[in-house]
Amino acid sequence: MYNVYMQKNFSEKVINRLTLYHCILRDYITEGKEYISSKQIATLLRIDDSQVRKDINLLNNSGKSRVGYIVKELKTSIEKSLGFEKTKKACIIGAGNLGMALAKYDNFTSYGLNIISLFDNDKNKIGKEINGKKIIDIKNLPEIALRDGTDIAILTVPGMFAQQTANLIIKSNIKYIWNFTPTVLEVPADVQVWNENLMGTFLQFTYNI
Amino acid sequence: MYNVYMQKNFSEKVINRLTLYHCILRDYITEGKEYISSKQIATLLRIDDSQVRKDINLLNNSGKSRVGYIVKELKTSIEKSLGFEKTKKACIIGAGNLGMALAKYDNFTSYGLNIISLFDNDKNKIGKEINGKKIIDIKNLPEIALRDGTDIAILTVPGMFAQQTANLIIKSNIKYIWNFTPTVLEVPADVQVWNENLMGTFLQFTYNI
Repeated sequence: MYNVYMQKNFSEKVINRLTLYHCILRDYITEGKEYISSKQIATLLRIDDSQVRKDINLLNNSGKSRVGYIVKELKTSIEKSLGFEKTKKACIIGAGNLGMALAKYDNFTSYGLNIISLFDNDKNKIGKEINGKKIIDIKNLPEIALRDGTDIAILTVPGMFAQQTANLIIKSNIKYIWNFTPTVLEVPADVQVWNENLMGTFLQFTYNI
Repeated sequence: MYNVYMQKNFSEKVINRLTLYHCILRDYITEGKEYISSKQIATLLRIDDSQVRKDINLLNNSGKSRVGYIVKELKTSIEKSLGFEKTKKACIIGAGNLGMALAKYDNFTSYGLNIISLFDNDKNKIGKEINGKKIIDIKNLPEIALRDGTDIAILTVPGMFAQQTANLIIKSNIKYIWNFTPTVLEVPADVQVWNENLMGTFLQFTYNI
């Protein structure tokens, strides 16, 4: 079926802001609030309210009343526009603290990120269960990824093992790597890497402290 | 003393790229490589090599030879330009998996981020040690933050406790919050929040999958 929501192409900045609006809306719903104004969103995020209105105008959002946007409808508009319902299958590679934190993060599912497996090479961890998912021997990655049709590998191994693990991910025919390691990976042209550059974020934030 | 490196004002995008170049250079040093070309950096990051040269030209970097940049000197130039030596004191609030992962991340120190304390409200965790740092009762945050002169609070508590914990951080006179929770915080004008919007990143990355 033709989906009117998926026509748009949002820039990365717009996607980033819409996700933050979505967090605010979710909290408003928890608090039982029905309406929200662009000014309220803008104040929380310290941006201009004309920016908020401009972003929301990009959505096919009908839930506007005299007292503000209808929280539930705006939330649904964002979810449809950003494709939350397009589920992607991901595996986490590296069951250390960060991998565990991500495996336990139930929020992912509502954004369409379905963590279906968890891999490690540590015999003491293999077989244990985290949030309903068994930790599998990394050796079995190619076979399991093929069986499950895994789209994304979330890489949370120590930096020194990052490249060799990436090589195994590539062999497993996974085309998207969300890289949480501090190593820049070498990958073939048909594989895309998203570097979650935590230290870059930190330096952007603290540069002027 | 007047520091020639600190005159520049880098944009967030430049800071982000320079941090990634730094990761590459660190790995080159580990591998014993002495020189690197803008082309090599550009290929790894899939950006244009003219962009790499432009970024490096912003640094006070003298280490250029006919065979490329001198890896060690370029690394030092980036560190000085981005102020890695300006140490900031941070505490982690929330000793769950994510907080633990960040507490164990030794890399932070080389970027000038010094994690000096770790807080939680769980009696089973208080008193335990993570990476040489004792977990302290969150009740003592105002007192400890004042004593230590803590600059940054890294917030890794569950979303539903985010705002009340932020209120305590504000009371403790900490002016910078690195927010890993999915909650948008309400803070006074003199407090800055950096939202580590993991789901925003994810959606930017997977929007076209």
